[in-house]
Amino acid sequence: CLLVTNEADFRYFTGFLTRFWESPTRPWYLLIFANYPPITIVPSIGVHLLKKTWSGEIRSWESPNVSDEGISLLQDILSEFLPKNGRVGLPSGPETLLRMPLVYFNQLRASLDKLHFLSDCEIVKNLRLIKSDSEVKKIRQAAAIAGRAFSRINEVAGSGVQLSKVFRDFQALCLDEGADWVSYLAGASEQGGYSDVISPAKDAPLVAGDVLMLDTGVVYDGYFCDFDRNFTIGPASDELKRTNEILWHATEEGIKNLVPGVKTQDVWKKINKKIEDFGFMVKGEGRYGHGVGLQLTEPPSISSFDNSIIQENMVLTIEPSMEYIPGKIIVHEENIFVSKDGPVLLTKRATKELPLIS
Amino acid sequence: CLLVTNEADFRYFTGFLTRFWESPTRPWYLLIFANYPPITIVPSIGVHLLKKTWSGEIRSWESPNVSDEGISLLQDILSEFLPKNGRVGLPSGPETLLRMPLVYFNQLRASLDKLHFLSDCEIVKNLRLIKSDSEVKKIRQAAAIAGRAFSRINEVAGSGVQLSKVFRDFQALCLDEGADWVSYLAGASEQGGYSDVISPAKDAPLVAGDVLMLDTGVVYDGYFCDFDRNFTIGPASDELKRTNEILWHATEEGIKNLVPGVKTQDVWKKINKKIEDFGFMVKGEGRYGHGVGLQLTEPPSISSFDNSIIQENMVLTIEPSMEYIPGKIIVHEENIFVSKDGPVLLTKRATKELPLIS
Repeated sequence: CLLVTNEADFRYFTGFLTRFWESPTRPWYLLIFANYPPITIVPSIGVHLLKKTWSGEIRSWESPNVSDEGISLLQDILSEFLPKNGRVGLPSGPETLLRMPLVYFNQLRASLDKLHFLSDCEIVKNLRLIKSDSEVKKIRQAAAIAGRAFSRINEVAGSGVQLSKVFRDFQALCLDEGADWVSYLAGASEQGGYSDVISPAKDAPLVAGDVLMLDTGVVYDGYFCDFDRNFTIGPASDELKRTNEILWHATEEGIKNLVPGVKTQDVWKKINKKIEDFGFMVKGEGRYGHGVGLQLTEPPSISSFDNSIIQENMVLTIEPSMEYIPGKIIVHEENIFVSKDGPVLLTKRATKELPLIS
Repeated sequence: CLLVTNEADFRYFTGFLTRFWESPTRPWYLLIFANYPPITIVPSIGVHLLKKTWSGEIRSWESPNVSDEGISLLQDILSEFLPKNGRVGLPSGPETLLRMPLVYFNQLRASLDKLHFLSDCEIVKNLRLIKSDSEVKKIRQAAAIAGRAFSRINEVAGSGVQLSKVFRDFQALCLDEGADWVSYLAGASEQGGYSDVISPAKDAPLVAGDVLMLDTGVVYDGYFCDFDRNFTIGPASDELKRTNEILWHATEEGIKNLVPGVKTQDVWKKINKKIEDFGFMVKGEGRYGHGVGLQLTEPPSISSFDNSIIQENMVLTIEPSMEYIPGKIIVHEENIFVSKDGPVLLTKRATKELPLIS
């Protein structure tokens, strides 16, 4: 059977949506058997909500209980349903994690020494790669919400406004436009470009010559979008304008190649080539996009090392970046649904020209 | 040495604050040696930001890179600095997790078979239990922000307003009052009490007879508050008023007992006794509070099973609940700093009478 412990995987199978995962206190388990209906083993605090989405068997215990955090229930069920030398598959590969304390996991394994705890052979990853119509609809809605917030950027950003206030007010715009919550916002406002793309906001005010970048993952009914937008505070330099134009074309190239059957590493190469065709030498092997859905970032990667094939009904970001002056980065990003006929934009495409905030 | 992988622990030691942990793609590592200065091993995307807070040694690799996600760097450093039979301690106990894929962890262990990978004996937990002045200040600020948002509840809630809209607008109020972001909001609005405390919002509008409960963890400079408030939509029944009053006194009893040297399980018992003194029989062993800080919930638990001793400079919640009618729960919650002289409220104490939203 499969043993699922982390939020996104658990929600994928059960529909159980709550922000309560923010508390690390309680583990949650889902067992999916090859030959029996699946069983959830959850803290009693979650049973009422889980029953609203999950019609399968639920077993529960009163948690927290450090002496037995659901482990004896897991032991009983696994002993009962699995044969000697039965295999328990855990999502174990890249981008996964085991969301239960190691001490409990070791206890579980030791008590079931006739069972083998192994990788799930990426079964869960491969299922989640392909989105249903309903999933695509939710990601599209999240992207539309963030898009409407971006279109109102002039309400919250301008010369002299503290970046920290822009961040707070932009999140409020996302909520006003229908986000359930805003799980991700990073960005910067720095002269001519930014030095990294993962920082929280500083208090320094926006000034002329800054590029303001906001990269956001808003959540709608449990699904993320993930894209950024760039704005200049006052007029941009010619070099910055040129960089922005190159990235716009590189993004276009990436989007165009999101077609079933294409290799992710070929998409990466084509984006790279497009940038180099403009005379800019790319350094490094940074990725140019990734999956998006239940999580802000998901497999596959649009990357030189990734061996995936683009498949129908994937949802991906295209996200090329250029460090056009040492320490000055610009990143573009769009979200795309891969239909059988090719790429469909979920984001409202960024304008070719860098928008100016007056 | 200690090997630290998860967000809160990593931030505790390094000061590295970013929402980028929302992406599960890249692992992050911190090694804290008994006899050498600590070393961080991080994806190159994080180096710029990490350098702003961390003056120690940083090693990095270009990530994502599924064939070597920082593992060879870890192997090299651990081989170089640890003797044969050296021990690597991992936070492994209750409420912890290993934030790296199992396949990489197994690879690391297998390649360093002369080292022992063990529990950290709760070293990290015990450090984090005790808050510095600076940490207390941040939690106090987070609680003040949420408190100001609650005081403006009439701006966003009222009969006929959809609960999902109340949730969105309340988060915007928290941002307006100075929250960096709102990592947790759960609650309900149901007739006479709620059936669980972890649900996201429904679209149904608030109606007379509802109890509206909002439980929020807003984040200020990386630190959480965690408390709820209850409101009635229209007049409350006598039974509800009575329940609310009992819980107010039970909370008072809990707060009063947050004194250095007292056992957490004795605080739990005293809260229970207070509720039972009012003639209500408590069922179950649900906890009545917990630590709060870098995470929404942290050890210890105010619980019958918890063996902790309340210590000076802990920050705790007191959170008694009553299911006063089957399926109708009411929960109160406050945040408290344990000074050497006893409890200091960080939240503005809830009023004894259930506030009415007209």
